[in-house]
This record gives sequence, C-alpha cells and structure tokens, in this order.
Amino acid sequence: SNNSNNSNSIAVSDMKDGELLKEVLELVLKEKLVTGMDTKAKVVQFKQPQELQEVLDLSVCNDESSVQEAKLILRQVLDYSVKTQHPHFYNQLYGGIDEVALTGAWITEALNTNQYTFEVAPVFIMVEHKVISYLLDLFGFTQGDGIFAPGGSISNMYGMVLARYLHQPDIKRKGIFAQKPLVAFTSDQGHYSVSKSAAWLGLGMDNVVAVPSDEQGRMLPKALKEAVEEARNRGHTPFFVNATSGTTVLGTYDPLEELADVCSEEGLWLHVDACWGGSVIVSKKYNSLLKGIERADSLSWNPHKMLGLSLQCSTFLTRHKGLLHECNSARATYLFQQDKYYDASYDTGDKSIQCGRKVDAFKLWFYLKVHGIGQLRSRVDLAFEASRYLAEQVVSKEGFRLVQQPECTNVCFWYIPPSMRGQPETSEWWGRIAKVAPEIKARMVKEGRMMIGYQPLACKNLVNFFRMVTTCTPVPTSTHMDQVLNTIDTLGTDL
Amino acid sequence: SNNSNNSNSIAVSDMKDGELLKEVLELVLKEKLVTGMDTKAKVVQFKQPQELQEVLDLSVCNDESSVQEAKLILRQVLDYSVKTQHPHFYNQLYGGIDEVALTGAWITEALNTNQYTFEVAPVFIMVEHKVISYLLDLFGFTQGDGIFAPGGSISNMYGMVLARYLHQPDIKRKGIFAQKPLVAFTSDQGHYSVSKSAAWLGLGMDNVVAVPSDEQGRMLPKALKEAVEEARNRGHTPFFVNATSGTTVLGTYDPLEELADVCSEEGLWLHVDACWGGSVIVSKKYNSLLKGIERADSLSWNPHKMLGLSLQCSTFLTRHKGLLHECNSARATYLFQQDKYYDASYDTGDKSIQCGRKVDAFKLWFYLKVHGIGQLRSRVDLAFEASRYLAEQVVSKEGFRLVQQPECTNVCFWYIPPSMRGQPETSEWWGRIAKVAPEIKARMVKEGRMMIGYQPLACKNLVNFFRMVTTCTPVPTSTHMDQVLNTIDTLGTDL
Ligand SMILES: Cc1ncc(COP(=O)(O)O)c(C=O)c1O
Ligand SMILES: Cc1ncc(COP(=O)(O)O)c(C=O)c1O
Repeated sequence: SNNSNNSNSIAVSDMKDGELLKEVLELVLKEKLVTGMDTKAKVVQFKQPQELQEVLDLSVCNDESSVQEAKLILRQVLDYSVKTQHPHFYNQLYGGIDEVALTGAWITEALNTNQYTFEVAPVFIMVEHKVISYLLDLFGFTQGDGIFAPGGSISNMYGMVLARYLHQPDIKRKGIFAQKPLVAFTSDQGHYSVSKSAAWLGLGMDNVVAVPSDEQGRMLPKALKEAVEEARNRGHTPFFVNATSGTTVLGTYDPLEELADVCSEEGLWLHVDACWGGSVIVSKKYNSLLKGIERADSLSWNPHKMLGLSLQCSTFLTRHKGLLHECNSARATYLFQQDKYYDASYDTGDKSIQCGRKVDAFKLWFYLKVHGIGQLRSRVDLAFEASRYLAEQVVSKEGFRLVQQPECTNVCFWYIPPSMRGQPETSEWWGRIAKVAPEIKARMVKEGRMMIGYQPLACKNLVNFFRMVTTCTPVPTSTHMDQVLNTIDTLGTDL
Repeated sequence: SNNSNNSNSIAVSDMKDGELLKEVLELVLKEKLVTGMDTKAKVVQFKQPQELQEVLDLSVCNDESSVQEAKLILRQVLDYSVKTQHPHFYNQLYGGIDEVALTGAWITEALNTNQYTFEVAPVFIMVEHKVISYLLDLFGFTQGDGIFAPGGSISNMYGMVLARYLHQPDIKRKGIFAQKPLVAFTSDQGHYSVSKSAAWLGLGMDNVVAVPSDEQGRMLPKALKEAVEEARNRGHTPFFVNATSGTTVLGTYDPLEELADVCSEEGLWLHVDACWGGSVIVSKKYNSLLKGIERADSLSWNPHKMLGLSLQCSTFLTRHKGLLHECNSARATYLFQQDKYYDASYDTGDKSIQCGRKVDAFKLWFYLKVHGIGQLRSRVDLAFEASRYLAEQVVSKEGFRLVQQPECTNVCFWYIPPSMRGQPETSEWWGRIAKVAPEIKARMVKEGRMMIGYQPLACKNLVNFFRMVTTCTPVPTSTHMDQVLNTIDTLGTDL
C-alpha cells in the first residue's frame, strides 16, 4: 500500500485512521479471496504445528506494535491460512465467502451491537423479523417463529429443547429428575450434534436411539416405528425425532413424508436437521428432496454451509408460534423493560438461550436481497450439477469407484491405485484401500494443490473413502471436477 | 466514492471486484466508527419500528440489485443503526469497536473457516492455543484448558456442564433421570444465564438457589453455606456455585476467597462469572476486586464487553486439564480422524458443544499483541476512573442520588426533578421517581443525544434508576461525564 509505506515504523496508536482496515481490504483483493482464486495458487502453504509456531511470533508483551509489525501479522495470517475460497477446497461442508455476504458481515462487525433489543439494534431487529418470516414461508410453514443461532449444533439443540418443553412444560422449572427417561431418535447417519445435545440437556447420549438407515443412508420409517415401540416397552418416553436432510457424510435425505406420518401417529416432535442440505429449497430442479419438510415441527438450516455466507449463519425455525419465547424466557428486567419508548414485543432476546447475540441475520438478508432469489437458485443448481458430473466421471474413469449416487452435493468415492486393480477384494485388500485416501490427502495438502475430506463409515462397513463436496462459492465447473480426478490419479499412481 | 459513481447503475454481479467492500470501508471511516465520533453527532436517528419498516425496503425478490441499490442499503443501515461507538452510548455492558480488533474480525470473516481442526485453520488453531494458555496464566491458573464460546451465557453453561460431569461422569451417557435433584447456587444479583442454563440442562430453574447478597449486592458466604445445608436437608444434591465478578446491574464483585472456602468445605465446583468484570484482571490498581479467582474451578470472561472487541468474543477457562474434552467429546470420525498428516491432538473441535465454531480467538490475540498489555492496562484504568469521577459528581450535584459506590464501572443513580426535591420520600414519591428514568431515556433517545440504561431492582426494593456504564472504547473522559449529568438535568427539569 503506497500511502502507508512511510508510516510503517510508527506505533499503531499513532497510525492514520483506518490504516489497518485498508490493509485488510488490499490483502483480500490482492489474494482474490472474494473473486475467484486461480486454481494454480496454493490452497494452503502447509506447515506442521511446530514449524508454524516457529514462523509466527505468538508472544504477547507489554509494548505495542509498530504498524509494520501489525501488517506483517496480517500478511502471515494470509500466507499460512487455508484458502477456503480456492476452487479446489472441497474439504468441508462450506467453501469460500461470497463478496456480498462479506460486505454484510463487515458492516455488522463495524457497528458492533447486539441482536437482543430494538433499542440497540433497530435495523437488525427489523431485518431479522423479516428474514425469519421469509424463511418460514420458503420452507412452507404457514406460521411460526425462528431465531439465528451460533451454528447448526445449537440450532438442533433448540429443536430438542422446544420438543421437550411442549411435551412437558414444567421441565423448565422442575427439571427432568425423578421421571422415566426421555428418548430421542435419529438415524445412524445423523449428525453427532444430536448426541451432544442430549448429553448437555441431561438426557444422556444413551437415550438417543440410532435408527437404522437403508443402504443409501436414509432413515427407515419402519425401523423408527419399531424403535419407538421398543422404547415404550422399556418404559421410556419417546418425544423427539431428528430427521436429516442432507447427511454429513453421504449427503442423503431422509424420507420426510413417511417420517412425519410416524411422528404424527406416535405423537412425537419432528425436527429436520437441514443444516447442510436445506439450501436446496430454492432449487426448482432438486427441491423435491425436501418433500414434506413443511410438516416438521422445527428445522435447522445453515446458510453458512452451501451458500457462501461466513460462519456463523444458522437458522432455527419452528411452526409453533410463541413457543420459543415461552420455553426460553427469563424476563430479565434490566434488558427487557416493559416501560420502553417503543413496542417491546419487537425485542427478540428473551426467545434465546443466549443473552448477547451476534447479528447473523443481516448478512443473509443482504445476500438474498442483493443477489435475488433467481441468482441464488442458479448457484445452488450449479453446485448440484457439478456433483452429478463428478459422479459420472467417477463411474466411468478407471481406478475410481463411487460409493453411491449423490443426493446432496457430497460425492463419495474410493481411489484404487494401479497396483491394486483387478484383484480379489478381500478384507486385506480393503485394509490397504483404507490407507490410500489418507496418504493421497497428505500428499495433496503438502503440495498445496487441493483439499478433499475422507473418512470411514463404520456402521456401513466402509473403509476410508473420499467425500468430495461442492458448494456455491466459488462456482464449481466440470473442468475443476476433471482436475480433481486427474490430480488424485497422479498423486496415487505409485501406491 | 469517486471511482465507482459511474458503475452505480450496473448489476451487482457485474461490479468491479471489491466495490461493496470498499464502500463499507469508506462509510466506516466517514462516520468515524473506529476513530472517535463527535459527541455532537447523533447516537441514533430514532424511528419507531413501523416507521423504520416504511423507510427500509425489506422485501426480497427474484432479481438482483444494482450497485446503487446495494449501496443505498448500506447507507441506510448506518443512518438508522445505533452508534455504539458514540462517546455517549452508555446503554449496555459494551461500547464501540476498537480498530485493531475490527481488523482482526474482518480478516477472519474474509478467510471464512472453522475453529475445529488444525487442518482447516492452522494459524487460528495455534493462536487459540496460545491465547488460552496466556489467559490461564493471567487469571492465575497454573494449568488447565479453555475454549471460546458464542457469548458469556454459553460460557457459563460450559461451567455448569463440566461441574455436573465431574460430579457424576455417567450423566453424559445416562442422563439425570431417576436421581435426586442437582442444585446450583448463585446470588440474587447473578446473571439470568445461570437460570437459563439450568432450564436447558434439565435441572430446572427452581433448582437454582438465589443466595441473598449484602446491601451492595455481594453474595453472602454465610447465606451460601446455609442454602447448601438446606438443600442437603431437602435431600437434594448441591454441585455448583456461580460467583459473579462484576454483576450486571450494580457491578459488584462477590467475595471469591470466602466463597472458595465454602466450596472447598462443601465439595462444590466454583465457577466465576467474570463476563463483565473480568477485564479488571489487567489493572494493577483495581485487580484486587478479583482476589481469589485463581481458586475457581472455572471462569467466564467476555472481552466483547469492556474491551471493545466486537461480538462475539467470550472465553471459558477451567483449571481441570482434559475435562472439556472428556466431558464433551463425541469422536466424530468424519472430522477428527486419527490417521491425519499432523498431530491431531491440536484439533480442538471435540472439546466443544458446537461443531462449526467461528474464529473468535484471533481478534483477541491480535488486539493483545498489537496494543500490548501496557496499553490495555491504561485503557481499563481510564474506564474505571471515569466511573469514579462520575460517582463523585453524582454525589455532589443537586438532584442526583447515587445508589451505591461503584466497584466495576457501573454507576447507578436516580435523578430527582426539581419539583420533587426536598419532599418526604414516601412510597408515592418513589412511585413517581420510578417514572423519571424511563421518561428521560425516551427523550434522550428521541433527540439522539445519548443512551443510558435504566431498570428497577426488585430484590433490593429499588425503583427504576439509571445504570450508566463506561467501557474502554471510546475512552471516556471527565468532560463526557459532566455532559451526561447536565443533559439529564436539562431533559428532566420539567418533570
Ligand atoms: C454478569 C454477566 N454474566 C454473563 C452475561 C452474559 O454474557 P453474554 O451476553 O455474552 O451471553 C452478562 C451479560 O450481560 C453479564 O452481565
Ligand atoms: C447434517 C449436519 N447437521 C448439523 C451440523 C452442525 O452444524 P454446525 O457446524 O453449524 O454446528 C452439521 C455440520 O457439519 C451437519 O453436517
């Protein structure tokens, strides 16, 4: 940055206004963090933890830094961080940041306020109300309420807490001591946040029943029905079913209509964990994957996953109007005074388990408003189409094997190195395959070429396979997909 | 912005790279959001919810916006948002944003990643480890562990969950059914998050005992001792004491040494909620308010309150090494593979109740590193000194009455309008005083001059009084303090 070179050696407290903020903007633009990095750039300049510790000066001391030192830190952060914006970052259920979303995030950070009262966040409160009613409508809830939570795990926890409250309202005051165990159900492919929630909420992880899924990973409605009966026979009290719309690993969608039938027959709360797969709601081509979601009692959806909004942006919706407030309110008089100079029913803070709550709604609203739904729809379709294209290539290319046809944008596959092709697939053979993905992963990261996740899936008896994920940002193309398979082939050819 | 005027009418998808980001930077600098606003600027341009809804176009539609439309939204957000950076924003336990902290927040948002694994957040993981060990040391824990949580309420919940786990590890798997109630203790001045936590965790709000405090609002150790015995006599099981270091309204500090004595006699976990008052740890002049904090089992501290870091930045620390992981882990194999290309013990995600976790540590570390501890110390001292100065003026100025001498930077006082001075202070008189603060507050907000909180305190039999709070950003001066009292006097003179 030209206008600041001469001021580098001065102390930060004497710098020109905004000098460090300008530096961040310049770095972001120079590295193309919001505008499509080159595939030839490194996705990460990898260092082991100990090496990184030597490069970075992490010490905190008494004296302030110079502008130069502060800028060096920013430079190093960029140098050694993973570029989730890189076209070949497929490692998680999120990717790079969308520029409009980042704009929304930056302005909210600068205004530093709190999503609890209209008093301190007039614009953001109106925006949150609006975006929640927009989303209720989008997911087919004719009425209801919602809240932005700090991530999908806590959104799922909201679902479990509301279900428990509706089942037995005096739990809020009396707790769940001295009663029969309450039991929750999720598929054996469900996200671990359901178990963690049960642990925190005092139900215990053993009181989450892992309902078997079919070969593709969809919860079996019949198995759910049986598991519910079995729990009742044990003298336990079923109250909550978590369906998953877009499972973490395989990306499959549970059959919501049939699960909703079971839940209404059995009088159970149906929560849909659509944290990952919920973005498909805007697609005309693929949204039938969510068929029946409007029958859920609640759902979680993370715009911070597929859409390219920065963490955190997670929504919890319920069709039970007023229940969030009833269940969670504590009526703190220092915050939610009823003798205010405006209609205090606009205040949202008492619906929440949090007190201070970051403004996560604005960037989503700004993203929807500025891009428009038409554009959003085509982005989601492009992410899905890239996954379909990749799956086809995996099927047709030698040395690759698809785990199953994708539903969400997860494409799961094994790479079989030349030396192992055409051999009997004994358990020893699979044992060797299990080591292939970790080794290729290590190589791709050390070269900084691409990042793709892998994992085993014990309950389906599957050894380590790649889980490749496409998202909306940056836009994945068929060329990128071809590069992925070629790179894996190159890196793994000697194994 | 000059270089973009001509491109305003084009669609956002065709705009120049970074155009909206540049606009945010320009707005932030123009409005002086990080550099000391003028006291003459408005703290808020107030509109009622309905009016605001008419000014803003909150609709979401199919088509994308033009650059001009997007910029108009940003402009409106600034126009109608509360300026927490205004020197006369004293409404909450936080203020404006510090520029260095904002720089840290912006770069983390741009890099959009997740604080769960070294794999996707190498720099941020090393920074979090470093800052946690720095904080353990700062608070006098000779060993331990910690985590950044999305706010103090959830940090407090971590304390309660760990205490429960240490008390009875099988709760993680079995839940708390079929056992005697577990009981938590906090003072009648404690934050409501302790009750909300108990509701979520299945203990129930009735199983949080509100221990009486002395006249200044400090928990009475003797009363705690009695309450614990009483709970045992009822057949209940005490397990957790929450002490507050800096209460929300009065800003008092519980006597930690004496409470630690009770806890060690009774075998109870001592958690210190230092969310608000913990920042005083860096002050040589005032840090004796935290005397004994190193004896706590855990503590919560929110840098996002007094220090000027943007929401969210909340830390949870415990001196029980390994316990966070033991208590919270679920060992998800898709995320925490043990066959990684680096030492997976650096991964932090399984200590957390969250899965995806926003990077909140970096901005704190960057703030500490760049400002240096020396500067931080003098900022905290300035915030405390402004509160002492204000309290003195309240005592000496006609028409003002101090509720009590401040400990933290909360200054609580009544304004007595001229027409009510020198009269017998009957309950009818107090009834009229109760209406003064809300009325003055409404007037100050409608004129946009300043914002100060007020509330009653029923358990101390106090009617609505102002709670004026000074923080580190912007730096509060004695001139500002004088202006506050003069403004209140002017606004309330006819009441
Ligand atoms: C004493 C105290 N503890 C905890 C909290 C909760 O912190 P947060 O708003 O970050 O959830 C507050 C909030 O004001 C507080 O005053
Ligand atoms: C299906 C599913 N649900 C919930 C979550 C949790 O979301 P978060 O990471 O925002 O807590 C995840 C995370 O990957 C997920 O895959």
